[in-house]
Amino acid sequence: MKQQKFSVLLLTGLTLLVSACAMNRTSRQTGLLTLQQQGSFLVGGTSLTEPGKFELTNALKPQGQTLHGDHAYVFYQIPPNPRKYPLVFLHGAAESKKTWESTPDGREGFQTIFLRRGFGVYLLDQPRRGEAGKSLVSTTITPTLDEQFWFTQFRIGNYPDYFAGSQFPKDTASLEQFFRQMTPNTGAFDATVVSKACSKLVDRIGGGILITHSQGGGVGWFTAIKNENVKAVVAYEPFSSFVFPAGELPKPIQSTSLFGELKGVEIPLSDFTKLTKIPIIIYYGDNIADQPTTVWNKDHWRAGLEMARLWAATVNKHGGHAQVVHLPEIGIKGNTHFPFSDLNNIQIADLMAKFLKENKLD
Amino acid sequence: MKQQKFSVLLLTGLTLLVSACAMNRTSRQTGLLTLQQQGSFLVGGTSLTEPGKFELTNALKPQGQTLHGDHAYVFYQIPPNPRKYPLVFLHGAAESKKTWESTPDGREGFQTIFLRRGFGVYLLDQPRRGEAGKSLVSTTITPTLDEQFWFTQFRIGNYPDYFAGSQFPKDTASLEQFFRQMTPNTGAFDATVVSKACSKLVDRIGGGILITHSQGGGVGWFTAIKNENVKAVVAYEPFSSFVFPAGELPKPIQSTSLFGELKGVEIPLSDFTKLTKIPIIIYYGDNIADQPTTVWNKDHWRAGLEMARLWAATVNKHGGHAQVVHLPEIGIKGNTHFPFSDLNNIQIADLMAKFLKENKLD
Repeated sequence: MKQQKFSVLLLTGLTLLVSACAMNRTSRQTGLLTLQQQGSFLVGGTSLTEPGKFELTNALKPQGQTLHGDHAYVFYQIPPNPRKYPLVFLHGAAESKKTWESTPDGREGFQTIFLRRGFGVYLLDQPRRGEAGKSLVSTTITPTLDEQFWFTQFRIGNYPDYFAGSQFPKDTASLEQFFRQMTPNTGAFDATVVSKACSKLVDRIGGGILITHSQGGGVGWFTAIKNENVKAVVAYEPFSSFVFPAGELPKPIQSTSLFGELKGVEIPLSDFTKLTKIPIIIYYGDNIADQPTTVWNKDHWRAGLEMARLWAATVNKHGGHAQVVHLPEIGIKGNTHFPFSDLNNIQIADLMAKFLKENKLD
Repeated sequence: MKQQKFSVLLLTGLTLLVSACAMNRTSRQTGLLTLQQQGSFLVGGTSLTEPGKFELTNALKPQGQTLHGDHAYVFYQIPPNPRKYPLVFLHGAAESKKTWESTPDGREGFQTIFLRRGFGVYLLDQPRRGEAGKSLVSTTITPTLDEQFWFTQFRIGNYPDYFAGSQFPKDTASLEQFFRQMTPNTGAFDATVVSKACSKLVDRIGGGILITHSQGGGVGWFTAIKNENVKAVVAYEPFSSFVFPAGELPKPIQSTSLFGELKGVEIPLSDFTKLTKIPIIIYYGDNIADQPTTVWNKDHWRAGLEMARLWAATVNKHGGHAQVVHLPEIGIKGNTHFPFSDLNNIQIADLMAKFLKENKLD
């Protein structure tokens, strides 16, 4: 009788315990989200100091005063028992870290998806953007009516038409969110300034995997060259600043892109070689032309994809490990310039997770 | 013997179970942080449309194109079984939502402190600031060397001296973080634009408690007037835009503030009356003069505190429930203009929690 009581108690206890553990496992997928820590800070940047002495009675005069700027803003979240390397996310042109948060239709973005999968995540607002707005250079911001251009440039479709099978949500509220998440520079974009701040972040966290988007792609190469603690780079649709060793620059790629011809950037071989030491993967979405066309958005990205392939071949020729994945070629259709927030972003996340696993980076 | 084995197993099981539960309790204080949901979105704002038809072959011409702007950016986190009302946090001048995140010395800010206490939290970047940078008005941003002025204005001390007993951390790294977290407007500050976006957020979440700082104070009054689902306002060191009913405007308060005299703002009585329907609490920190002085920072805030008291008295005369807490008068010393991120911010959070509890708002 006494033993029976013990058994019941034991079973109850163990059942509860197992439930608790099951809940903890579930929380890695779609249920509760558990964090060990979260917070934000500014990293990198420089400062100016006006000669002279600050006078309390003349406190609006610049003498003796400072200006700190050109830093990045970082919001980070660390799950319990995080995986080996955290993920560092850098947005593209006209975007902020919002890019990696909720999608335009309110689903979870890569921030939360990878947090659930046990990765520490660091989201940047690059210098002179978003909450890292304090810049050392002046700028004028002029409101510009150009959202239909961006809809088209970013291959949601050829405005007002969505591409057939587009992975962008079709409701107007989502499109409005997408337009509103764009945010201007508070100082000219400068890949050197941005990559310095990114490198400082990597120093601070001791090592990480850099995930870039679009214009951030070039910054990613520069950051990996600056900092050997960048353990891998995942680049979504990089466009500008493909770097080549001196003497190996390919011819500029002509296209009907509204941004003109696409040129590579020459750098010393000793710098380029650093990009051969780490795994790099590049993804491009759908609706990219496979031959020259007057449809300028499809042709813009044809040039980008072509340059990326030349670039990866050059990295690999020098002993590197770069691959370019054109998503439709592996059967993933309809992705825009923002695959990580498209309707199939779980599938896109799975691909990235597979890359990390294959390279023993998870 | 069998019974003994059971006992051992039972004890082990129950010990683990108790540990698991204890961890769950602790997670509300300093350990793990559990979320039900997190994400971000843009809310409010307006748009412009250029007459004409968008032409794909002339995609840089404005015809038929739109510009969405003047929205707020919101990052939200919801704990499991959240308390009745979420907290909506609005920063002050030259700040972003960073104000409420990690403190300059890296401790948890109100975002995480109140999340641990079971509140849903919504942090705004107000329209034309931070990640809500897309503005409908143009602006020029000029880098300005003025951080020693702000150090003094925000009552960290009289630069280069910290006030005796200041609750601001004294190391240079913290001060640098503080300077870097300031971020410029991407369009002129407009309390109407900001309060409209805040009100839209309150609509979206169905009701909440508004926590404001400094310049956000005025926005807080306007939001509560616009939206009866603002269930209470907690204002840290509001300065501008104290609203009074027509005919009851106090005389401007003279001071040696570098911002000049402090004037109230006249509004219709029918609007003012709305502020009498909800509990309101205002907090001011330390090192505020109790009589006119040429020390301009202490005198600036003397004017602010005096105006706040006139304002609360007017609200209460009309049947309202507003109180002004000058922290040193209740024995809390050394607070700067940012009590919620000062070294004693847990004590400051406890005070706010007490206010919410007393008003049955938790």
